[in-house]
Amino acid sequence: MMFKDECHVCIYCIHIKFKHLVHTSLPTAFDTATHGEELSCTQSGSPHCSYFIILGTRSSGFFSGCNVENASYGLTICAERCALTKAVSEGHRRFKAIAISSDLKTSFIVPCGACRQFMVEFGTDWNVYMTKPDDTYKLLKTGELLPLSFVPESLEEERINPKA
Amino acid sequence: MMFKDECHVCIYCIHIKFKHLVHTSLPTAFDTATHGEELSCTQSGSPHCSYFIILGTRSSGFFSGCNVENASYGLTICAERCALTKAVSEGHRRFKAIAISSDLKTSFIVPCGACRQFMVEFGTDWNVYMTKPDDTYKLLKTGELLPLSFVPESLEEERINPKA
Amino acid sequence: MMFKDECHVCIYCIHIKFKHLVHTSLPTAFDTATHGEELSCTQSGSPHCSYFIILGTRSSGFFSGCNVENASYGLTICAERCALTKAVSEGHRRFKAIAISSDLKTSFIVPCGACRQFMVEFGTDWNVYMTKPDDTYKLLKTGELLPLSFVPESLEEERINPKA
Amino acid sequence: MMFKDECHVCIYCIHIKFKHLVHTSLPTAFDTATHGEELSCTQSGSPHCSYFIILGTRSSGFFSGCNVENASYGLTICAERCALTKAVSEGHRRFKAIAISSDLKTSFIVPCGACRQFMVEFGTDWNVYMTKPDDTYKLLKTGELLPLSFVPESLEEERINPKA
Repeated sequence: MMFKDECHVCIYCIHIKFKHLVHTSLPTAFDTATHGEELSCTQSGSPHCSYFIILGTRSSGFFSGCNVENASYGLTICAERCALTKAVSEGHRRFKAIAISSDLKTSFIVPCGACRQFMVEFGTDWNVYMTKPDDTYKLLKTGELLPLSFVPESLEEERINPKA
Repeated sequence: MMFKDECHVCIYCIHIKFKHLVHTSLPTAFDTATHGEELSCTQSGSPHCSYFIILGTRSSGFFSGCNVENASYGLTICAERCALTKAVSEGHRRFKAIAISSDLKTSFIVPCGACRQFMVEFGTDWNVYMTKPDDTYKLLKTGELLPLSFVPESLEEERINPKA
Repeated sequence: MMFKDECHVCIYCIHIKFKHLVHTSLPTAFDTATHGEELSCTQSGSPHCSYFIILGTRSSGFFSGCNVENASYGLTICAERCALTKAVSEGHRRFKAIAISSDLKTSFIVPCGACRQFMVEFGTDWNVYMTKPDDTYKLLKTGELLPLSFVPESLEEERINPKA
Repeated sequence: MMFKDECHVCIYCIHIKFKHLVHTSLPTAFDTATHGEELSCTQSGSPHCSYFIILGTRSSGFFSGCNVENASYGLTICAERCALTKAVSEGHRRFKAIAISSDLKTSFIVPCGACRQFMVEFGTDWNVYMTKPDDTYKLLKTGELLPLSFVPESLEEERINPKA
């Protein structure tokens, strides 16, 4: 795979720098996902896609994601939820790692609370890489990003006033 | 592709019956999408996936979708939005048709308002097939399902009190 | 209640012009709601609140709403859903009319699909006034804005493959 | 205010037990909010309202909230976001504390990630009381529930590739 020269200004290329992060904790080659990534970056629903995702499943396969925006802001789906939705609809529910990239110059890009909730639906112990264009990153578990997580099991707990 | 005998009880098989609907208005063979569909049906995030989607782009390719649910109900992504999100993240923004299936015995399954809003983001003149297990369907344009649509262009209109 | 001179540039004043619309179909005086409205307009979560709502219940009472935005766009709650949420949390579930105002110069402001879905949850036969700053409006029933509505009853219908 | 005998089975009464929590950190009497609460509990959009909220602003005033559900699950608004939306639409943007109650027998009820994101929009340093029917609770700051929060300021940061 060609590594682009303009990698310091292109979100796609920034992202590629972090492929080794996900790669390390995943069983198969990362390059299989790159074509989809590139499409996402240049042709995505978000004309100026600033957030970008690569998600790795436990079994195999990678899924990329980008922000999918809407004239009604409340229907916007963040890049993280985009990638997870794609994976789930293809039968995956166990993940190893997700890497998040953005073009924020000086900050590690972090997932919003809604995306963190989406992540813990599939476990509180998998990896979230929050990256920065200068090749550095922070790594936390999904559960660390949402302490005292509200998880699917919460809905099954005994209630004091069971419904008739 | 094998047509399953139990097609009257399996949402996947019901759906397959309608493949000709989307196929007719799309340039390539539908079967390329079926493996993904089957996974969606049997292993999707929704343990009892009752709604199911096939989406066809103008250029090529098909995308399937299923409900992706969450312990926090408000984060649920319907099957229609799932399929559209997948397609958009792979670079598609022009669609020809979407077919929606469900296991509702006597009703044509219709998209919710949020999904209709998601559809008109990509035009008000493409086809929505709303199907029923007995092989019948209704066909409307996206714009007919959301009269006086709120579309991206709405955000660009002149305002009486422009922001400084 | 004072009618402001700058009514042609202030979304609040534009809105007031339409109070008679909701008033006509509601049993009590509209002015009881105006204080909340004014606050909404000038101090709302949306620094440049361009959409504005007044909602009337069948029993009594009025609720105003404004866009409540979020750094994570997908969590934005439109003005229509804001007003409905407020009313529902105070015990109301039957509505007579909702009026929607904006500062779009030449267009009748329409609700997005998600808000239409939120409306039909409470019936398909109540009034939606879509207004324009020049004092004109369009009037449709909630169900006319979402033909073939997906309603709560849809979830109760018989399925071909009941869950065990 | 009458304290009901059946307080061990009624979510409303459980909630009242915790009023002192919010009261302590708020300037005005809690009882002013109780009528709205009761309505919320018995007549809310959620027929079996199991989650319940009381929100206190910095200036004055209290807002209650309950889950507002929808046939399209993804449009559900949690009790926390309900209370915050109400407050914001009435002009409040600075909060002191929020208390969350539920009928979960053995668990402290926690907010979902989407609600935590909604909370940090208004600061990362105000109090969240997560209660249990046995009169115990956990107390954390909004920012502690969403470490490395994605906040409004994040959108203003310098980007490596500014939009033309």
